[in-house]
Amino acid sequence: MILCRTIAELKNELIKIKQSSNDPTIGLVPTMGFLHEGHASLMRQSVAENTASVLSIFVNPMQFGPNEDFERYPRDEERDLAIAKENGIDIVFMPEVKEMYPVKPRTSVIVSQLTERLCGASRPGHFDGVGLVVSKLFHLVQPDRAYFGMKDAQQIAVIQQMTDDLNFPVEIIPCPIVREPDGLALSSRNVYLTAENRQQAVVLSQSLALAKQWANEPGITSEELVSRVKAKINEAGQAEIDYVEWLIYPSLEQPSWNEPIELEESKYILALAVKFGSTRLIDNTLFVPNVVAEVKDHV
Amino acid sequence: MILCRTIAELKNELIKIKQSSNDPTIGLVPTMGFLHEGHASLMRQSVAENTASVLSIFVNPMQFGPNEDFERYPRDEERDLAIAKENGIDIVFMPEVKEMYPVKPRTSVIVSQLTERLCGASRPGHFDGVGLVVSKLFHLVQPDRAYFGMKDAQQIAVIQQMTDDLNFPVEIIPCPIVREPDGLALSSRNVYLTAENRQQAVVLSQSLALAKQWANEPGITSEELVSRVKAKINEAGQAEIDYVEWLIYPSLEQPSWNEPIELEESKYILALAVKFGSTRLIDNTLFVPNVVAEVKDHV
Repeated sequence: MILCRTIAELKNELIKIKQSSNDPTIGLVPTMGFLHEGHASLMRQSVAENTASVLSIFVNPMQFGPNEDFERYPRDEERDLAIAKENGIDIVFMPEVKEMYPVKPRTSVIVSQLTERLCGASRPGHFDGVGLVVSKLFHLVQPDRAYFGMKDAQQIAVIQQMTDDLNFPVEIIPCPIVREPDGLALSSRNVYLTAENRQQAVVLSQSLALAKQWANEPGITSEELVSRVKAKINEAGQAEIDYVEWLIYPSLEQPSWNEPIELEESKYILALAVKFGSTRLIDNTLFVPNVVAEVKDHV
Repeated sequence: MILCRTIAELKNELIKIKQSSNDPTIGLVPTMGFLHEGHASLMRQSVAENTASVLSIFVNPMQFGPNEDFERYPRDEERDLAIAKENGIDIVFMPEVKEMYPVKPRTSVIVSQLTERLCGASRPGHFDGVGLVVSKLFHLVQPDRAYFGMKDAQQIAVIQQMTDDLNFPVEIIPCPIVREPDGLALSSRNVYLTAENRQQAVVLSQSLALAKQWANEPGITSEELVSRVKAKINEAGQAEIDYVEWLIYPSLEQPSWNEPIELEESKYILALAVKFGSTRLIDNTLFVPNVVAEVKDHV
């Protein structure tokens, strides 16, 4: 495994890969580090599907708001490199901020509509930062496939839209959410949780699992479903709901609010963001026509 | 020479090129067609410098304002294909609007600051459309080099900025303005000019040539230089000035307005847009430290 801290080093290594094999394919796993089993599952899928796999580790300041946790975002280089190596990564690209942004960029990559709800509404500018850094990484690595976890379902929708609109020659591969045994979605931010927060946070996946049942009740409306999920989350005394939304996926349009839910009509997402203390967690689950039972097992 | 009207055909042909040679390089000449000798000079440079050259011909609706000349922009497919062939182009990519924009894009590529003056100020949204289509073309063709004429000097500055900020793996090659024997910069829009317009339009290159002399007068200010150029252009009774600007290039910042010009301090551009009847023409010339005399010959 090769560690590249500069763009020049990365380019060098990529040239070697292109020369070493006939028509090699490259997989990219873009991360902000502090890797967990969710990231590891992306790495393994990339390694299985490509000639060579690049893991990028970059805590991208452009996707953090001024009052967000950029400075205190958890970092552990040594552990990350060990996990990357264990999972068969060929190249780790781990640049400094100055390497990615030698000067303040004047170019923005902005995806409209899809970014107006969910985390886009709660975190203004967040997806502009994501669009910028993903564009940069796609151009630097020139991957055939890029792997993203479905925990950030809106991020995948935004990146897929950007990829389609701009004709990026990259296949976006969404990968399933990986969870703790009790259901909590893995997240680098879980380390912030106090013991009590951690215990209470299980309410998130529990509420999604309940929603899977509720959504099948004849005549239930979007409003009723969201309201029950909120009530369930609020049973956890430390939970402070940022949003709970029921939307069509991946367009992220709002279905009719007071009409019965038509599970066979569209693909839906139930997505939530909830703070426990100062730690904001997100989770979601998809409702796919005809395969509701199958998807239910994920939560 | 192969003509591709669809993205699928283009991809096919590009794969063939990549397989036919060891480490081939690809040159891209993006145009809106109605080709003239300016375009031909870009094609010849691309052909000389690359294994294969792609000419794109696409009148991009996204870079035209609602009251601009998208509908009446001149088109001549047959003639364009003949010129492409004569100049050694390997692939012509000539998609329909529906092929490039099957649905309304939700992604914008926006370059700030550089687009606030000159044509960016006169044509709101124009450079957003340019950023979008050039991003798409760069991803579709994946060229090593892309060739642009310096007549659109601001466009080159914007595309270079976008390329740097987003790490596009493309070298932007600016190519000199090609002119008629009397000095008029070649432009597809020149066909719109009436005989009288055409005669008067020579004032544009004449005023730039005079500015080359004036700029060397000790103590002359930006204000005085611009004012003399405007007066010269206004000698042509049909000229209606959109802008005449004296800026630092390629940052397009305004130098001090009332201080003597320091030709040795910066690279400058004198850029103008002038309407003759309903036809808007642009022209410019660069002032490069230490090589002023040499550049002067271009106009």
